[in-house]
Amino acid sequence: MLTEDEVPRRYYNLCADLRSPLPPPLNPATREPIDPAALEAIFPKEIVRQETSAARYIDIPEPVREALLRLGRPTPLVRAKRLENFLGTPARIYFKNESLNPCGSHKPNTAIAQAYYNAREGTETLVTETGAGQWGTALSYASMLFGLKCKVFMVRVSFNQKPYRKVAINAYGAEVVASPSNETAFGRKVLAENPAHPGSLGIAISEAIESVVTTPDGKAKYALGSVLNHVMLHQTVIGQETKAQFEKLGIEPDALVGCVGGGSNFAGFVFPFAGEVLNGKRECDFVAVEPKSCPSVTQGKYDYDFGDTAGLTPLLKMYTLGHAFVPSPIHAGGLRYHGMAPLVSALAKEGVVRALAFEQKEVFEAGMIFARTEGIIPAPETCHAIKAVIDMAAECKKKGEERVIAFNLSGHGLLDLQGYDDFMEGKIK
Amino acid sequence: MLTEDEVPRRYYNLCADLRSPLPPPLNPATREPIDPAALEAIFPKEIVRQETSAARYIDIPEPVREALLRLGRPTPLVRAKRLENFLGTPARIYFKNESLNPCGSHKPNTAIAQAYYNAREGTETLVTETGAGQWGTALSYASMLFGLKCKVFMVRVSFNQKPYRKVAINAYGAEVVASPSNETAFGRKVLAENPAHPGSLGIAISEAIESVVTTPDGKAKYALGSVLNHVMLHQTVIGQETKAQFEKLGIEPDALVGCVGGGSNFAGFVFPFAGEVLNGKRECDFVAVEPKSCPSVTQGKYDYDFGDTAGLTPLLKMYTLGHAFVPSPIHAGGLRYHGMAPLVSALAKEGVVRALAFEQKEVFEAGMIFARTEGIIPAPETCHAIKAVIDMAAECKKKGEERVIAFNLSGHGLLDLQGYDDFMEGKIK
Repeated sequence: MLTEDEVPRRYYNLCADLRSPLPPPLNPATREPIDPAALEAIFPKEIVRQETSAARYIDIPEPVREALLRLGRPTPLVRAKRLENFLGTPARIYFKNESLNPCGSHKPNTAIAQAYYNAREGTETLVTETGAGQWGTALSYASMLFGLKCKVFMVRVSFNQKPYRKVAINAYGAEVVASPSNETAFGRKVLAENPAHPGSLGIAISEAIESVVTTPDGKAKYALGSVLNHVMLHQTVIGQETKAQFEKLGIEPDALVGCVGGGSNFAGFVFPFAGEVLNGKRECDFVAVEPKSCPSVTQGKYDYDFGDTAGLTPLLKMYTLGHAFVPSPIHAGGLRYHGMAPLVSALAKEGVVRALAFEQKEVFEAGMIFARTEGIIPAPETCHAIKAVIDMAAECKKKGEERVIAFNLSGHGLLDLQGYDDFMEGKIK
Repeated sequence: MLTEDEVPRRYYNLCADLRSPLPPPLNPATREPIDPAALEAIFPKEIVRQETSAARYIDIPEPVREALLRLGRPTPLVRAKRLENFLGTPARIYFKNESLNPCGSHKPNTAIAQAYYNAREGTETLVTETGAGQWGTALSYASMLFGLKCKVFMVRVSFNQKPYRKVAINAYGAEVVASPSNETAFGRKVLAENPAHPGSLGIAISEAIESVVTTPDGKAKYALGSVLNHVMLHQTVIGQETKAQFEKLGIEPDALVGCVGGGSNFAGFVFPFAGEVLNGKRECDFVAVEPKSCPSVTQGKYDYDFGDTAGLTPLLKMYTLGHAFVPSPIHAGGLRYHGMAPLVSALAKEGVVRALAFEQKEVFEAGMIFARTEGIIPAPETCHAIKAVIDMAAECKKKGEERVIAFNLSGHGLLDLQGYDDFMEGKIK
């Protein structure tokens, strides 16, 4: 519905519209706000600048925008008419389809920006973590695009559940190892305690950061796929497009729904609308959906905690289950993170965002309903958002409400089909 | 580049422009042209009408066109600038991207039409074969869309190589069994001779047809994913869009390239241009690319043969390796067919289409080059077309020719990654 001309030319920064400033990251030793320069050990200068920027808008570099166009932006906003009919709901359901690119998820939106800034500043190798593999695939793709080497620490349980992710990452020329691994001191420590450790995003982040800071020449940098402000920033192309698409339709969405692990697809989808809510320009129900097995917002506390398990990162003010928390090995590996993006956490704390949590089985049930109505097999992460939407639509049916509910289809499930097989075989309780 | 309004409203039928009429299908018993009514035992009337139609254009029903729009039509025509730069060729390379839909290939173009016509005429169950699984996935999707049951006989070697295809087909609510199976007399006969038989498309077609004709109530019909005229017809939406896209660019393509198994993605891409070549309105080099292990056009003979292995179909005039031919178990399962579409065969016989054949290893090498330049992991079938394009572009470099070469990216390889793994592990000789 949008033209390529209408693809955003700048990122939207929610920090400019927060009611109270975001609590700063702290130096764990001093508990003092961290000097941004310290972050330049692992991130390029431009990323650090964006991470701490208060500017409402930040321009998207032309090479990044061109790469976004090649990846199929603007992405479609689709009405889920067949799902509505199946549910017999008066609600109108829309989804923003971020799965229509070679990586199959929203992750390239920030992977491309991060690879570009790193390449521009002389980085030679990017090191990162990945859960289910969406982010690892996206960063491998973006690294290939900008001529960087790439190394991925993939959470072991997902590495084993989704063997084709390794092949896809390798096909783009990147290296991938299961985490915890024997390649880092922290990985070896975790394996010594439990050789069969399933791994977690917190542990994989620790391994990736350790391998960067122990690379002497400084030509290796770290890239994070979620949580931090600059990642949320890059993802706002999703919500900006969605806003323009709803404006063209002359429709005001009543609710926006997204799954949350670190928070990036939810933030990208919601923030451009949330800024207007904070300014009293619009009302909207923002729903963040997480797994019951990793309920950072619904069960965690809002406090300073490490972003990783080893304690290598600054302390971030966020909803957290504690940096040592290890979630059960669900197929939605992208949601197995102990914390929540500080910006998403701030909105939840202010009551602008509400959170729901669901069990894995009911989430796959929702994904199957979507596959058999709309014809798209969603990623297990995305199924969480769909479960919430289906419940909300049922509520509308009960009350006879014609709400407009939109969710972010953050990724497809073609590399997660083992989870669907387990579900159809009744192996998911 | 095209708008939804520019998605074709009618199919193009090459039969109307052939220099000499297509040799008719023959009744194997009498060797007389078959009575079209006989085909109504396994196909709906409208499909039989289209199979034998001489009309140049046939309207696309609105519900079919709407489904095509939902699937992302018009699909993009993309310039492969990064591939050109990598090859250092003066040639301009374009690809039509048919992989951007939930099924991941061009197959839904005809699956939707066939499911629609069947549903309209009261069919309750569609039965089909599939090689690598692209067609089985597409027909399962289309059957779901139009409320039909669907059963798929999947060639055993692909069934084992690509286990996630089964899951995807099941996710859409369809049933899939490995062929040769114990569910048909012919399957049992083949297994009796060789319990470890890898299967072939010819055998899977026989099993699908047998299970339809032995279903008494006539509520089950057969659907074919390639070879027949009506399938080529439905796929011409690809070439019609490509023609419009090149016209908008003000460019005349010098060569169009596609992989060929049964011939449907090649035909859909090429026929709208081929009609103009036959009428002397344009010149173009049409290149059909097949595997050396199943070289129907480059090594087969142009003669009447059965479309399946058991001999249940009419005799078709086509390039064939003989209906008993069993190709080696390559990963490009969609190309493991003993014959070639009669319409594609006729163009090859007339010298309007030329054919090339390649080994599996060089084909995966080409696919890896494409993945690491353009960022899309192509289906092993599609890699055949890419290998030819890379060779043609190298030839242009040698001669300093600025040819415009376009190929059909018939599908992505996300459910074929085992083949890429085998290639990267050096297991493909």
